Amino acid sequence: MGKRAPVKIVVLDVLKPHEPNILDLGRALCQDSNVLDVNVSVYAVDEKTESTKVTISGKDIDFDQIKKIVDDNGAVIHSIDKVVVGKKEIIPVPPEVSLK
Amino acid sequence: MGKRAPVKIVVLDVLKPHEPNILDLGRALCQDSNVLDVNVSVYAVDEKTESTKVTISGKDIDFDQIKKIVDDNGAVIHSIDKVVVGKKEIIPVPPEVSLK
Amino acid sequence: MGKRAPVKIVVLDVLKPHEPNILDLGRALCQDSNVLDVNVSVYAVDEKTESTKVTISGKDIDFDQIKKIVDDNGAVIHSIDKVVVGKKEIIPVPPEVSLK
Amino acid sequence: MGKRAPVKIVVLDVLKPHEPNILDLGRALCQDSNVLDVNVSVYAVDEKTESTKVTISGKDIDFDQIKKIVDDNGAVIHSIDKVVVGKKEIIPVPPEVSLK
Amino acid sequence: MGKRAPVKIVVLDVLKPHEPNILDLGRALCQDSNVLDVNVSVYAVDEKTESTKVTISGKDIDFDQIKKIVDDNGAVIHSIDKVVVGKKEIIPVPPEVSLK
Amino acid sequence: MGKRAPVKIVVLDVLKPHEPNILDLGRALCQDSNVLDVNVSVYAVDEKTESTKVTISGKDIDFDQIKKIVDDNGAVIHSIDKVVVGKKEIIPVPPEVSLK
Amino acid sequence: MGKRAPVKIVVLDVLKPHEPNILDLGRALCQDSNVLDVNVSVYAVDEKTESTKVTISGKDIDFDQIKKIVDDNGAVIHSIDKVVVGKKEIIPVPPEVSLK
Repeated sequence: MGKRAPVKIVVLDVLKPHEPNILDLGRALCQDSNVLDVNVSVYAVDEKTESTKVTISGKDIDFDQIKKIVDDNGAVIHSIDKVVVGKKEIIPVPPEVSLK
Repeated sequence: MGKRAPVKIVVLDVLKPHEPNILDLGRALCQDSNVLDVNVSVYAVDEKTESTKVTISGKDIDFDQIKKIVDDNGAVIHSIDKVVVGKKEIIPVPPEVSLK
Repeated sequence: MGKRAPVKIVVLDVLKPHEPNILDLGRALCQDSNVLDVNVSVYAVDEKTESTKVTISGKDIDFDQIKKIVDDNGAVIHSIDKVVVGKKEIIPVPPEVSLK
Repeated sequence: MGKRAPVKIVVLDVLKPHEPNILDLGRALCQDSNVLDVNVSVYAVDEKTESTKVTISGKDIDFDQIKKIVDDNGAVIHSIDKVVVGKKEIIPVPPEVSLK
Repeated sequence: MGKRAPVKIVVLDVLKPHEPNILDLGRALCQDSNVLDVNVSVYAVDEKTESTKVTISGKDIDFDQIKKIVDDNGAVIHSIDKVVVGKKEIIPVPPEVSLK
Repeated sequence: MGKRAPVKIVVLDVLKPHEPNILDLGRALCQDSNVLDVNVSVYAVDEKTESTKVTISGKDIDFDQIKKIVDDNGAVIHSIDKVVVGKKEIIPVPPEVSLK
Repeated sequence: MGKRAPVKIVVLDVLKPHEPNILDLGRALCQDSNVLDVNVSVYAVDEKTESTKVTISGKDIDFDQIKKIVDDNGAVIHSIDKVVVGKKEIIPVPPEVSLK
């Protein structure tokens, strides 16, 4: 590209308390003007916390802003799992070799 | 987005008595003016109860309204499993790395 | 929706005798004026009975009518497995989190 | 539908001798004027017999005609596995709940 | 159909010597004027032989011609695995019932 | 077809040294004027070698040319795994019978 | 092709320190004028490092440039896993033979 490329999609692993619920966390993340959509899936539930995968799409996602919103909601980013940077989105790849 | 983003899809885990049946529960949830469609799948059946996944799509889903309808039908929301918030719907992500 | 929402698809678990066969049961269910299509799959066979999944699509499915036709054919509805209610049909959801 | 609904697709489990082969059995079934297409897959082979799945599509499949053609070719219908009856064909259903 | 229906696709299990290779066997089968395309996949290799699946599409496949070409190349047809006969091609069927 | 049919796709199992890398091997294979595209996937790595699947598409692939290029790059063709010969490309087949 | 063919897609296995994060590594790789898009997926996390798959698409990817950017970010290329070279992209292949 040769210039600062936009981050279009980020997948985060987020540990959160039960409140605010994932509707409110999703809405809070969408408050950021760079964010277009948020998908949240809960994959484990504990007495006090929920482990979630949060997928964010946007024009150019600003990680520091995202981190601030997550923090402000009492949650914490465990890891950044995936990113999509650049002009289009998911790059196709040749299928895995099956070695039955 | 920078303004209050709409919640487009919610997946709930709902425990319900056998009556009302899932046709009637689906119809009751569709009474809410924000709801467009409801899909219900039963995944476990007990003597007195059924465990179900209830997927709701709408223009901007109001969780409190949904919870009230579920309660009024003698059922209970066990957990909120997934949400889709914002402009479009499901965000594509790069495929999982296979580590055969 | 705010008005009585139509039930578009129902999946039933039906236990039936060998006769009438599933072609005739499917045709009988299609006699109901609200029914558009019926798919039947047999998943277990016994000396005297067959366990089947019956999927019905229609403009607004009337469960009592369906139950009556099933009864009239000597079969019994074991459970209602899935329903689709409202304006469109299958709601897409974010994919399951893989926890390899 | 409210009138006699057409059977569009039938899947049969058929046990057959090695001769006639599945090309000839497929052609024989297509002789029936209600039949449009036949797919045959062999899933087990014995010294004298082959176990096959025979999928038939048509405008309105007449089971008695199909059974007669199968019999005339020295084969036998073990079971009727699936049928599609009505206006359109395969009805989509909400995906299975995954309970990892 | 009511007249002699065309065989559009045949899948064969073919045991062959290493020579001619599968490019040459594929080309030889395409010499037949009824054949449009040939796909060959090797699924097991021995010191002197290869086990292959040979998929053939055509306007109306003549099995005796196919068998002659296979024989002329020093190979042997172990079994006929699948056929597609008639007007269109692969018939869709309702999905398998999952019995987790 | 009745004339010499073109080989459109070939899948090879190729054992290669670490150098040249797979970008350079892919480029070398594309030097052949019959070749349109090359996909290479590494499926096993050793101290001195890499096991790869090399998929080649072209107007009419000349195996002897391909073999020469592989040899000139210090690699060796272990086996020819798949070929697509003729007019169109991948032939659809009826799905496998599931025998749960 | 008969001339120097372009490398359109490369998949790399990259070991990196936690900083810079994968958003910054993706942006750095997109600085290269031949690169169009970058997808990064983390598949293992250690105290000091992350194992990642980095997929790069471009008009004609220059491996030496990519390697330099990876090095400059304190990371190391473990292996080159896949490449797509030539005119179009992913070549379809006949499906694997299932040997249940």
